[in-house]
Amino acid sequence: MIRAGIVGGTGYTGAELLRLLAQHPAVELVAITSRGVAGTRVDRLFTSLRGRIGLTFVEPSATHFERCDVVFFATPHGVAMSQARELLAAGVRIIDLAADFRLRDAAEFERWYKMPHACPDLLAEAVYALPETARDSIRQARVIAMPGCYPTSVLLGLLPLARLEKQSGGRQASVVDWHGIIADCKSGVSGAGRKVEVDLLAAEVSDNFRAYGLAGHRHHPEIEQQLRLATGRSVQLTFVPHLVPMVRGIHSTLYLRLESAGDQDLQQLYEACYRDEPFVDVMPAGSCPDTRSVRGSNIARIAVHRPSRNQAIVLVVEDNLVKGAAGQAVQAMNIAFGRPETQGLTQLPLLP
Amino acid sequence: MIRAGIVGGTGYTGAELLRLLAQHPAVELVAITSRGVAGTRVDRLFTSLRGRIGLTFVEPSATHFERCDVVFFATPHGVAMSQARELLAAGVRIIDLAADFRLRDAAEFERWYKMPHACPDLLAEAVYALPETARDSIRQARVIAMPGCYPTSVLLGLLPLARLEKQSGGRQASVVDWHGIIADCKSGVSGAGRKVEVDLLAAEVSDNFRAYGLAGHRHHPEIEQQLRLATGRSVQLTFVPHLVPMVRGIHSTLYLRLESAGDQDLQQLYEACYRDEPFVDVMPAGSCPDTRSVRGSNIARIAVHRPSRNQAIVLVVEDNLVKGAAGQAVQAMNIAFGRPETQGLTQLPLLP
Amino acid sequence: MIRAGIVGGTGYTGAELLRLLAQHPAVELVAITSRGVAGTRVDRLFTSLRGRIGLTFVEPSATHFERCDVVFFATPHGVAMSQARELLAAGVRIIDLAADFRLRDAAEFERWYKMPHACPDLLAEAVYALPETARDSIRQARVIAMPGCYPTSVLLGLLPLARLEKQSGGRQASVVDWHGIIADCKSGVSGAGRKVEVDLLAAEVSDNFRAYGLAGHRHHPEIEQQLRLATGRSVQLTFVPHLVPMVRGIHSTLYLRLESAGDQDLQQLYEACYRDEPFVDVMPAGSCPDTRSVRGSNIARIAVHRPSRNQAIVLVVEDNLVKGAAGQAVQAMNIAFGRPETQGLTQLPLLP
Amino acid sequence: MIRAGIVGGTGYTGAELLRLLAQHPAVELVAITSRGVAGTRVDRLFTSLRGRIGLTFVEPSATHFERCDVVFFATPHGVAMSQARELLAAGVRIIDLAADFRLRDAAEFERWYKMPHACPDLLAEAVYALPETARDSIRQARVIAMPGCYPTSVLLGLLPLARLEKQSGGRQASVVDWHGIIADCKSGVSGAGRKVEVDLLAAEVSDNFRAYGLAGHRHHPEIEQQLRLATGRSVQLTFVPHLVPMVRGIHSTLYLRLESAGDQDLQQLYEACYRDEPFVDVMPAGSCPDTRSVRGSNIARIAVHRPSRNQAIVLVVEDNLVKGAAGQAVQAMNIAFGRPETQGLTQLPLLP
Repeated sequence: MIRAGIVGGTGYTGAELLRLLAQHPAVELVAITSRGVAGTRVDRLFTSLRGRIGLTFVEPSATHFERCDVVFFATPHGVAMSQARELLAAGVRIIDLAADFRLRDAAEFERWYKMPHACPDLLAEAVYALPETARDSIRQARVIAMPGCYPTSVLLGLLPLARLEKQSGGRQASVVDWHGIIADCKSGVSGAGRKVEVDLLAAEVSDNFRAYGLAGHRHHPEIEQQLRLATGRSVQLTFVPHLVPMVRGIHSTLYLRLESAGDQDLQQLYEACYRDEPFVDVMPAGSCPDTRSVRGSNIARIAVHRPSRNQAIVLVVEDNLVKGAAGQAVQAMNIAFGRPETQGLTQLPLLP
Repeated sequence: MIRAGIVGGTGYTGAELLRLLAQHPAVELVAITSRGVAGTRVDRLFTSLRGRIGLTFVEPSATHFERCDVVFFATPHGVAMSQARELLAAGVRIIDLAADFRLRDAAEFERWYKMPHACPDLLAEAVYALPETARDSIRQARVIAMPGCYPTSVLLGLLPLARLEKQSGGRQASVVDWHGIIADCKSGVSGAGRKVEVDLLAAEVSDNFRAYGLAGHRHHPEIEQQLRLATGRSVQLTFVPHLVPMVRGIHSTLYLRLESAGDQDLQQLYEACYRDEPFVDVMPAGSCPDTRSVRGSNIARIAVHRPSRNQAIVLVVEDNLVKGAAGQAVQAMNIAFGRPETQGLTQLPLLP
Repeated sequence: MIRAGIVGGTGYTGAELLRLLAQHPAVELVAITSRGVAGTRVDRLFTSLRGRIGLTFVEPSATHFERCDVVFFATPHGVAMSQARELLAAGVRIIDLAADFRLRDAAEFERWYKMPHACPDLLAEAVYALPETARDSIRQARVIAMPGCYPTSVLLGLLPLARLEKQSGGRQASVVDWHGIIADCKSGVSGAGRKVEVDLLAAEVSDNFRAYGLAGHRHHPEIEQQLRLATGRSVQLTFVPHLVPMVRGIHSTLYLRLESAGDQDLQQLYEACYRDEPFVDVMPAGSCPDTRSVRGSNIARIAVHRPSRNQAIVLVVEDNLVKGAAGQAVQAMNIAFGRPETQGLTQLPLLP
Repeated sequence: MIRAGIVGGTGYTGAELLRLLAQHPAVELVAITSRGVAGTRVDRLFTSLRGRIGLTFVEPSATHFERCDVVFFATPHGVAMSQARELLAAGVRIIDLAADFRLRDAAEFERWYKMPHACPDLLAEAVYALPETARDSIRQARVIAMPGCYPTSVLLGLLPLARLEKQSGGRQASVVDWHGIIADCKSGVSGAGRKVEVDLLAAEVSDNFRAYGLAGHRHHPEIEQQLRLATGRSVQLTFVPHLVPMVRGIHSTLYLRLESAGDQDLQQLYEACYRDEPFVDVMPAGSCPDTRSVRGSNIARIAVHRPSRNQAIVLVVEDNLVKGAAGQAVQAMNIAFGRPETQGLTQLPLLP
């Protein structure tokens, strides 16, 4: 059994992590901390867990996470890095669902997150844990940084082309115009977390649609960093997130100008790239995947469209709380601890 | 022109009041106060009002409401009573959309609202301004207390029978069993106001349904008080409010045990009662009105069902922000200032 | 392995049944029929099942259900009864999710469903398969009639009192006033099925709330029949269903006049009644369960309120497609085939 | 008074047209036809109109539209062209909310709408009635073709740049790369009409998001045609519509590569272009307009963003049923009949 602890866990990614770990046959949930609701039973906060999780939230100071094999951070940014050293010293691996270890450059972290980084030395060893690109590194990793929800969908949508670019080895003509990538992304409201803000009230969100974050969204540098690494080229991304009046789901619509890839059969390329991936489903040509087709599951579905020789449109859907957060974290845990990668993650999507 | 001021106005009833007053041909909006956002343009907070309202929120202390003919309070409970005396002294009439002047008994107010009443002497003169029952009193009133959203729907649904009861003059057999009234009410989330609470977040409310307030809801004593006055009998109400994943609308399902009214043609009774009312629409027999049929309008629609000789089910729909709050306040203002009662309130519902 | 077939399966209960059976460790899904879409792969219709169900819909005439141990009918009313005899003759047990075998009286069936009953002789042997009341009968049953979604919630909410009544053995004073039961029920739109009707369009249902079926709903006689059987008394139910702008979930608010039960501790009564039930959760006193707390799961949650000595209000939530349909059918199958009752039904609710 | 008739009128644009015309002080609604529901009162179909519209739907053959000054077609494509000649001959002007007269080229109409054009000769005189570009032509027009909902939002978002292009008179360097325009559009479900299709059911649309129409959407050629005319250049548009789980509203996110416009102050350009337009609101720099800020109103709001020197992102919101359909049709009628352009169209948006 993997003995797991959770820091945080009163937000939506925390709730989802609890749901998945409670159903995982190889995990023993040892402790969960929360400053705000210490002393409250977990199933009092999340009625859906009644009868399945007997834990009570405890004060962070009162927890002995040394007993754990792994500790998940489902916290705001900045918490994981403040506790990382101590846990690592005790031999505990950490999986951070926030952004503390996503960016390799401490200065960039500080620019976007407005706080100094507490352990920049750990950034080099941290693994950006998109399993489809980092499976081998995850196996050995002590510090596992889970990708953001938007980055997961955008990166999965571009990975086959990025790999083709890497293989082409920097020849003059690039595969696509990496300076002209447009990611028009749409997210359900759970992606914003269980934060008490006017903008997230039901009467503000319902029957309404809007863009946000055009002045700069924190997932922007993360996506560009990973695309640079994946392609070996410089990258410029236009990223516009939008808020959809629904609870779960991300839909990314990616617009690409093809250069040398204009000659490629993209459908074939994508299918080949993801053939052995348990959680990425390349849809038949012509498909328009809907977000509900992955609701509650760890699957991302992708469709590739080709309106003209020089253009591709890639559609990606995922459940932002599962493949975009807690599910992918469990997937990474499975890899890190040598479990079957799909263990505890085989629930079918809830449709309708 | 009626010179109007607004205290509060950053909540949903305030926004709705602004929408209605901005379109009212006989109202000049003079000033609006807000502690939280003083200095902000109104149309910055509510983009929907751009180009139509040029006002800026000002500090309460900086306002000269003496220039006004009427001041609306779209505030939390307790504000109107603290400013009432001063305004009345300056000859300004007040229309309170909160609860300060709804209950006639200061002790009852204090029990339900957990605060001492600042001017119990004004309770006697305050008019509970359901226009369908209090038109004449509103004309002269200085202190106009607007009914709550739930009470408006429940009272309109019971009024024809209450009147019948009153006419029957306290004979032994009552018209209905006033001790067994059940009001199963459902409200959209805007009824809870623009409050920043976890329970009102979109991700909590969407695709979800629940009851609340079973331990006692503040609209309970208000409904019972008005029913007692209307019937001349003691009344016991079972009132269970529910939260519907929609923005606007209240649907009240009222269950009545008929006593002497068992012989009545209720459809006829209801139609006769509301024949001349501009904002109450008695639907044809057999109807099930939907909340969207009144969305954005000041109309309440009522249908009466009669499953058996001794039972009636009354369905009432209203827009909680209009007939249940701001629209009814404008209706009361029209009456109070001798304007045509429907002035500024003739917009048709928005459907779909 | 239990070899299972499905007739129908293109509606929402069919989709849900497919989801649950695909995850059931002891079920082999053998065949699925559909007139409308024969020749279409199941996962083409329901993208959510991609990679998990390889079946193709076949013409009813082309199916050999004799190979099955059990056949589920997720069809409109009238289909199961037309195929029952043949299947039974072949030794196949049938589980009908429609209404063909719910009412014991063929005449009553014909009055409510406007069609002659094809095999009235089977009505006597059919088991009304609410597991909490009929576990033993289900074990032997050949014809298993699944309760409707509304009846499941209403019956579970009244069962502890009905049992108390039965135990009291018909003494003069009844436990509650069984002639005055009020069930104010609210359902998400999936309860109406995947029917192509204007009233079920998103633009009609969204941001809207209404009652329906006041002239008589088919679940009415079914609930009354079962309450009569459970209490041994005559029963009169007032049942008003409402449509909630959400996908899944039923919330029943039950109003009871207590007679001799006025002396009972209802919280204790309910907890005792359901102590050993795996899928009924009696909430702590004072709770208001929300529908999302059971979304996607087979659990019903119940809360009992007691506004006065002579009145009880019982709140029940269930997922209409799971405990109200497909999940309960799988539960019944588990019982009928001697499997652990919770097998394949342990997924946690999806919240948010 | 303008005597108006409506053909069709049982769909959502018809309902919206009825709402607006019923409130228009200079319009007398003379007749409304419908094949499907002839004999039904209008306010029986649309409860929201009770007490305000006394008309009954009549058979098309039974109508004498010769009495009308104008006839609106709120019908499926193909109806207006079949009745146009006769009406024009009787001196009646027609306003078509469908696509019959939008495309100038009959062959293109036939390619996209799969039917022969009944009166190609009228295409030359028909006016594509986007008031912001065609005000003068509308004044004299007999055949007024209302733009589609998506085209209205995309064209308004590009018009200031298209005009700049036109002014630049075909110089080598174009203002923007008109071959690389990307329009990522999102629409509420009412845009699909009141059609009885599985895909539009509430249980399919709710809590879900998806793209559609990637194989070719009928609004595509219409937008390209108008952009060609407005710019005097050839144009290639990438247009991807998406379905949002809400009732009303379109949000278009437009991505442009700037060429010579890289030196322009776009905020200033847009403000100048729309300064005198009553129904186009250019938001302050940095804004993200939300669809609800125009719900129920004829206003389109636009925000221009400039992530880099060579790129612009334009956000446009409109109510698809008002500015995208019925409201714009009333605006065109006002122009055509010499009424004040905003008459009957001054209702404020409904927020929340």
